[in-house]
Amino acid sequence: MKPLGLKQISYYASAFANEADLMSFENYTRDWLDRVEAKLEAVLPLADDLPERLHEAMRYSVLGGGKRVRPMLVYATGMSLDVPLIQLDGPAAAIELMHAFSLVHDDLPSMDDDDLRRGNLTTHKAFDEATAILAADALQPLAIHVLATDKAMDCDSRTRLKLIELLVNACGSQGMTGGQSLDLGAEGKQLSTDELEHMYRLKTGRLLHASVISAVLCADLNNPKFQALENYIDHLGLAFQIRDDILDIEGETEMIGKQQGADIERSKATWPALFGMDAARKRASELLNKALAEIEILGPSGEPLRQVAHYIVDRKL
Amino acid sequence: MKPLGLKQISYYASAFANEADLMSFENYTRDWLDRVEAKLEAVLPLADDLPERLHEAMRYSVLGGGKRVRPMLVYATGMSLDVPLIQLDGPAAAIELMHAFSLVHDDLPSMDDDDLRRGNLTTHKAFDEATAILAADALQPLAIHVLATDKAMDCDSRTRLKLIELLVNACGSQGMTGGQSLDLGAEGKQLSTDELEHMYRLKTGRLLHASVISAVLCADLNNPKFQALENYIDHLGLAFQIRDDILDIEGETEMIGKQQGADIERSKATWPALFGMDAARKRASELLNKALAEIEILGPSGEPLRQVAHYIVDRKL
Repeated sequence: MKPLGLKQISYYASAFANEADLMSFENYTRDWLDRVEAKLEAVLPLADDLPERLHEAMRYSVLGGGKRVRPMLVYATGMSLDVPLIQLDGPAAAIELMHAFSLVHDDLPSMDDDDLRRGNLTTHKAFDEATAILAADALQPLAIHVLATDKAMDCDSRTRLKLIELLVNACGSQGMTGGQSLDLGAEGKQLSTDELEHMYRLKTGRLLHASVISAVLCADLNNPKFQALENYIDHLGLAFQIRDDILDIEGETEMIGKQQGADIERSKATWPALFGMDAARKRASELLNKALAEIEILGPSGEPLRQVAHYIVDRKL
Repeated sequence: MKPLGLKQISYYASAFANEADLMSFENYTRDWLDRVEAKLEAVLPLADDLPERLHEAMRYSVLGGGKRVRPMLVYATGMSLDVPLIQLDGPAAAIELMHAFSLVHDDLPSMDDDDLRRGNLTTHKAFDEATAILAADALQPLAIHVLATDKAMDCDSRTRLKLIELLVNACGSQGMTGGQSLDLGAEGKQLSTDELEHMYRLKTGRLLHASVISAVLCADLNNPKFQALENYIDHLGLAFQIRDDILDIEGETEMIGKQQGADIERSKATWPALFGMDAARKRASELLNKALAEIEILGPSGEPLRQVAHYIVDRKL
């Protein structure tokens, strides 16, 4: 199993002022990241199984680091609802596989045309374009396979089906893939805040939502905290994307792992580009507060979700 | 609903010598094709729903004709096992959506670089490359969504999960997508018959297998005819691909709907290219006979499967 990078941990840490909060968050996340990394490693086909080049590219696309924000949300929600973590490894890995699929395609020459991702060459640069397209194509069925078959997930067929339905709806034309399509169509255009936030909700919001709600489904199909958690992740999802946009402008290439300023170069429709950096920061902070207010009803058990929220809005990568 | 093309019907018909067989096959297929076309039309997002361009490209990729061989196999198997056809519309549509996804990506410039498909411009030519990639990406989750939620499929959650597992395994790195990867890697190489048939089994065989077994799952998880049907489609799947290769060389561009001779131009590893046209015909005929022998145990109820087998090996498009 790949050890957790120290650089990764120290940047998670940078989001916390209070040392006790930092320590507990560091302990959680170390465990979460180890768990999801082990699960991804276990479900991905071996690089020496045929077709080797395809499998190598799949592993390269998924195991090359990454913040693992979506798995963090799965585990944080699960902890808040007393779900055993072993139930959550499958959903966390499945969602991360879907996320990796989308990154590989978004980076392609015909889309964002990025050479760097997570500080490494993008998959089409490290392999070739056809292999990158196919490797990502094969991550989608693998994600669903995990939800349909993972034995550690001690849940009934009905719950598995609900998890699958949630995930595919988040990834389809009215979710992540639709959001990427809107994003490409919005280059160089002046969107309204509503149009921009609609695009964000599809592009990143739906999969972040699926991360939280997957853990809710593992807890109980009719959990009364459901609505509060849906509102929490709706606010936080938007804040996450705005933070990404800010980092694209202000972050250092080495730290964010991709070319700084790439969005501006492509005239991407982003919050800071359309409404200014100050407005972007203000909106992210407002959304963080709204997210935190929603989960007040969880009391002390909501602490992991609060910490993830702070991390998402204050992160440096 | 799009009416069934007369040209399509008349070429189905060309596979039959006996007029009574022809009439019954024509009646079956007209019904099957109408059913799956209506289902696809119903499950695809409307072209004027946001994101419009993406939805338009999804519809273009799926509803532009096509032989619908996989749905035919679903319905023929279901008829042979007395499954009500309404149960099969969802699986038939889901499998065809997955097939359409693979065609759009296979046609891309970085893969087979085809301009024509089913007599029309390929999706990346009719739209643009990014839209084609994303439209196909969104067909995968839609296919799973249909299996997870289609109300006309009167089956329990466990059966739905089995159908989903079957389909995603057929499409992943050790199925269709893996086969396309092997195919690209085999260009210009001298494969053995075993290597070639392994590639065929992944590239087209696994999804054809899923078509037959989906209907078996709708009939009964432990149907005793399961093994015979598995062997039938294993033989027939290879024969289908060999017939495709023969048509690529001998077919008329207008009839096959894509550029004739494209495989030779790209030095594709195909049965006729590696072992000659006579050997290819002989192997296809031998595989047809093996497939037919396997389903003798079905008696008269196996007739739709026999007719589909003849059609697959004798078709002109």
